[in-house]
Amino acid sequence: MDLRNALRICVIPDRKAGAPLTLEEQADRALQGGATMIQLRCKEMNGRELYETAIRIIPACRKRGAFFIVNDRLDVALAAAADGVHLGREDLPVEAARRRVPKGFIVGATAHSAEEGTAAEAAGADYVGIGAAFPSGAKKNTGVIGVEGVRKVVSVLSIPAVAIGGIGEGNVSQVMAAGVDGVAVISSVVSCIDIAGAVRRLSANMGR
Amino acid sequence: MDLRNALRICVIPDRKAGAPLTLEEQADRALQGGATMIQLRCKEMNGRELYETAIRIIPACRKRGAFFIVNDRLDVALAAAADGVHLGREDLPVEAARRRVPKGFIVGATAHSAEEGTAAEAAGADYVGIGAAFPSGAKKNTGVIGVEGVRKVVSVLSIPAVAIGGIGEGNVSQVMAAGVDGVAVISSVVSCIDIAGAVRRLSANMGR
Repeated sequence: MDLRNALRICVIPDRKAGAPLTLEEQADRALQGGATMIQLRCKEMNGRELYETAIRIIPACRKRGAFFIVNDRLDVALAAAADGVHLGREDLPVEAARRRVPKGFIVGATAHSAEEGTAAEAAGADYVGIGAAFPSGAKKNTGVIGVEGVRKVVSVLSIPAVAIGGIGEGNVSQVMAAGVDGVAVISSVVSCIDIAGAVRRLSANMGR
Repeated sequence: MDLRNALRICVIPDRKAGAPLTLEEQADRALQGGATMIQLRCKEMNGRELYETAIRIIPACRKRGAFFIVNDRLDVALAAAADGVHLGREDLPVEAARRRVPKGFIVGATAHSAEEGTAAEAAGADYVGIGAAFPSGAKKNTGVIGVEGVRKVVSVLSIPAVAIGGIGEGNVSQVMAAGVDGVAVISSVVSCIDIAGAVRRLSANMGR
């Protein structure tokens, strides 16, 4: 799978939203439903816990041909042999990370505006996560830029992009129409009793 | 400077103990007093803040010929081109880190017992931090193993070692006599109004 295809449905397991399932269990079910990428993000875990969680999730991703990305912790991503890292504005700068990773290792960045999108691409990002598309409970204090905001960021990029923030089966077609290659989802998927089914419904509603 | 010499006086700046000075200011003063290594450790900082702090401290270390090590965050250490990383038991496993770092990059580990010391060396650590030598306010829930405990760990190692935990000018000669190559200090140095002087007094009292 190439990166653009792998970005179609990125599921981010979440301890709270997905409780009582573990992050691994959430990832497994999402992959069964057709998730093309799993992103490991858990600010409460220390490096050791993240590493051990990563090496437990990776085999399921490999088996399904899905990508595995670690949020923030490039060291965990490298040590666990993940496919890449996703860096937000509180994480390492993209250019500093880029200099230290092997060829082919994916570096994703977050953009909340066209300016940030342009900067991320110039810094060497392989893809951009654009958001927040819609309001969501997962992240506070993050500006909601709406579908039009997503479209504006996509318009300045030549690298692939995913939309993130409040995306579910009811609104996924709107953001896909804005030109992104896929979506990153948390609560709308991992809080469902049937995570695999939620991924399937999301996919069915993407419109392409 | 080789690693063994660089481990003589490792100062770990601390936001609380060293307030109101910044970590950089504390490091500067410690280096003026003759610190041979600075370790950046701040669990409250995100990756971006750690990286930016690291690249501000490194030039002062280089100027003085001191080593610069990052605690826990191997990614920050690599991105900032630090001399190495120090890994505790909540951080990445030493062997996983070892596989991903360039030749010559220092990987330090923590040991609280001879068993952990042996394991750290077998896993590929370049040096071991042994502690806690004495009770200290800096870390809770960490067992105090005393000078005899430090001596036991040193006795099983062929790699260099530093003692850590509650060490100051009054007791530094005791731990040095246990066979370590140096000491890592926090409060006893950075909480002093004259940090450089505190490092000098520590050095003068080491006994060798």
